Amino acid sequence: MISRSLSRFVVDSQWRDMPEALRHEAKRSVVNVIGTALGGSSDDATRRAAETLAPFSSPAESTVIGRREQMSCLDAAFTNALAGNVFDFDDTHPGTIIHPSAPVAPPLFAFAQRHSMTGAKLLHAFILGVEIECRLGNAISPFHYKKGWHITATCGVFGAAAAIGKVLGLDETRMLWALGNASAQSCGLVETLGTMAKSIGVGQSARGGLLAALLAQNGVEGPELPVEGPRGFLQVMGGEPDFDGLTEGLGQRWELLRNTYKPYPCGVVLNPVIDAVLALREQNFVPPERIAGIRVLGHPLLGERADRPAVTTGREAQVSAQHAVAVAWLDGRAGVTEFSDARVRAADVLALRSKVSVGQAAGHTVDGARVEITLSNGGVLDHVVDAARGSTDNPLSDAEISEKFRTLAAHGCPGFDPEPLLTALWGLDEALDAGSVIAMAASG
Amino acid sequence: MISRSLSRFVVDSQWRDMPEALRHEAKRSVVNVIGTALGGSSDDATRRAAETLAPFSSPAESTVIGRREQMSCLDAAFTNALAGNVFDFDDTHPGTIIHPSAPVAPPLFAFAQRHSMTGAKLLHAFILGVEIECRLGNAISPFHYKKGWHITATCGVFGAAAAIGKVLGLDETRMLWALGNASAQSCGLVETLGTMAKSIGVGQSARGGLLAALLAQNGVEGPELPVEGPRGFLQVMGGEPDFDGLTEGLGQRWELLRNTYKPYPCGVVLNPVIDAVLALREQNFVPPERIAGIRVLGHPLLGERADRPAVTTGREAQVSAQHAVAVAWLDGRAGVTEFSDARVRAADVLALRSKVSVGQAAGHTVDGARVEITLSNGGVLDHVVDAARGSTDNPLSDAEISEKFRTLAAHGCPGFDPEPLLTALWGLDEALDAGSVIAMAASG
Repeated sequence: MISRSLSRFVVDSQWRDMPEALRHEAKRSVVNVIGTALGGSSDDATRRAAETLAPFSSPAESTVIGRREQMSCLDAAFTNALAGNVFDFDDTHPGTIIHPSAPVAPPLFAFAQRHSMTGAKLLHAFILGVEIECRLGNAISPFHYKKGWHITATCGVFGAAAAIGKVLGLDETRMLWALGNASAQSCGLVETLGTMAKSIGVGQSARGGLLAALLAQNGVEGPELPVEGPRGFLQVMGGEPDFDGLTEGLGQRWELLRNTYKPYPCGVVLNPVIDAVLALREQNFVPPERIAGIRVLGHPLLGERADRPAVTTGREAQVSAQHAVAVAWLDGRAGVTEFSDARVRAADVLALRSKVSVGQAAGHTVDGARVEITLSNGGVLDHVVDAARGSTDNPLSDAEISEKFRTLAAHGCPGFDPEPLLTALWGLDEALDAGSVIAMAASG
Repeated sequence: MISRSLSRFVVDSQWRDMPEALRHEAKRSVVNVIGTALGGSSDDATRRAAETLAPFSSPAESTVIGRREQMSCLDAAFTNALAGNVFDFDDTHPGTIIHPSAPVAPPLFAFAQRHSMTGAKLLHAFILGVEIECRLGNAISPFHYKKGWHITATCGVFGAAAAIGKVLGLDETRMLWALGNASAQSCGLVETLGTMAKSIGVGQSARGGLLAALLAQNGVEGPELPVEGPRGFLQVMGGEPDFDGLTEGLGQRWELLRNTYKPYPCGVVLNPVIDAVLALREQNFVPPERIAGIRVLGHPLLGERADRPAVTTGREAQVSAQHAVAVAWLDGRAGVTEFSDARVRAADVLALRSKVSVGQAAGHTVDGARVEITLSNGGVLDHVVDAARGSTDNPLSDAEISEKFRTLAAHGCPGFDPEPLLTALWGLDEALDAGSVIAMAASG
């Protein structure tokens, strides 16, 4: 009875049993995702989605992060999740490659402006939502993503439902219905990655999970076995799912403690590549015209996901090793500006990009890569990274997450003072009203 | 370039090229689904979903069929699609077992109250939406449903997107984006059948398709190959999809001409079973205490979907051969009342249900079945049905569809006069404003 066990776990969990390190990691995740949502708040995908939803969105109860509009909690959940993930700059759960926070934190914050809750209550529900989301992801990885499911969206809707179900105080049966109502909405295809449609799946996961829990509260009944049933989530979308692992050690080990935060706004497989290029550049900068070729070698996923020599938009460039290498070498950094449409089309970037190739080499994890630069004169520079910045073994510090937050706020919302919000988020576990914290994320 | 071809087909299609028989079939489908939505409008699932959405739904622009509320077109699309399908009494596309109209007609009618359109324009978009929906279904059947996808919801979202894209007058590229934005939302699991959560998937397909087209109109871009790409809909959710058939004969043969309408409010596999029981009963009624056993034999799908001896709610009973046989024998009919919770729990039904078993027999299509009644005295009565009422070879007449509409209206909305709406729907191709037609479906 996996679905029942997961439901009971969420219902029974107590904040006082959450270890301090877990509470702190929840705040790191929340600071990171509100930061990426601020950074993505003025992106075309976010703006167009917000403008599409605005005429239908009422009451104006919840903040659209980094924007002037207010929307219903359902539509704010959609838009903020979309914005949080739009640059692929949000967090990453290793192994599943789920971006855990975007589907779970935005609906909680949006709902906190409708349904009053303390910061601790929000963080507790967030921890539990991420636990459900990532355990489902573990059970169907690597098949699920490889087959073509956008795992952040497909698993995220369950996480959002569990989290909102927790703050609603649903009983075990209604929590089970919430998971069932989420199962009916689980969606998202990898084919949409590199386009704005990716963000529709992620936005829908947040909105759908929130709606699933509200429907369950109002008595909309789901099946007994939405997760493990013969025509349920695991069997239909999971290849050969790991049933047993799903509930093993519930409440003893926590998926959120494995969460990682990206230093660069692009696919996580590119992190060690950019680290290596920046290291080589610092050791020995060579003008691009004296470079004959650059070879990038890494884990098979690097080639599968990011061998994209011909990209024309910033969105596509987020999953292009060629682009990442070119801007890192030319600009000495790889931030949101370096993944803009303008930079993707610049002549110097195009020229260097054409010299970059991607290969596979044994012995690398997804956190490692090797970069070899062959010079026109025949010389070779090379560098190996084993644990990229932001990986499990080389995590960003709290200060680095704060700095990332500031940079993103400046990019997405020029003129917005991020400090009061940043301070309030780091103090979220003590906040009496989580809704008033997120209200500080409104801009304009 | 399947996705582009489908987009171009929808964009280029002209109402004047729609054959008269196709226009008439569109009206039959619309009358049938508005009827089933009236019938389902007071069901608990519909009521609870409407009550959940109401606080968030604005502007109050679109009619919730058979109810007092008005909602935004997005939420009315959700609720009316849910109501249209809640009893499984809506139409069926043979081969795929898609219920074509519920995801496509409700968003069109709801949107017609926001965006003025003639009845002909609505019917034309409906025909095209159903074409896209059912061709996608053909390409992935029978794998897709058998695997556990609720095909009405998963394919319906594309149909709704195409239909709304047509009335918006999207160009070819934006129509392609609408399909891409739909692909990001394609969802629905068979595990939810027999519970209210099934209706969440169907409601979401209607809402999601409408939203997908609105997003595309506002510039939210999708992938180039949402349907046929390596991580797109067909490859991820389709087993070994039939790529070529998808675009073969577009505009020459029409899937809507194959549509069928149910005489009974339950799974379509049960239609021939009920026909056979009613025929036997009329020939030779035997009191249930003199019946030793009833054996139902049919197509493998009958056993897979409907061998459910122990059911406790009307919703479950809709897919129970045991229940269908029992009420048809006891009551001499199988309408919405016979699939109510009360009838499912009645002692006489329970007693007879326990004598019914389901088996498989070679030579039956899904439209055929054999029923054998063994009497306590050893005698045997049996009857074979080859083409159930409502099947392709034995279709309901227009008059029977009108009568079904009246019966459903009386069940779902006691006191509502269905005649003006029914007359207006049969004249929809001549209506100047489709929105004012559906406004007549408000009750209370």
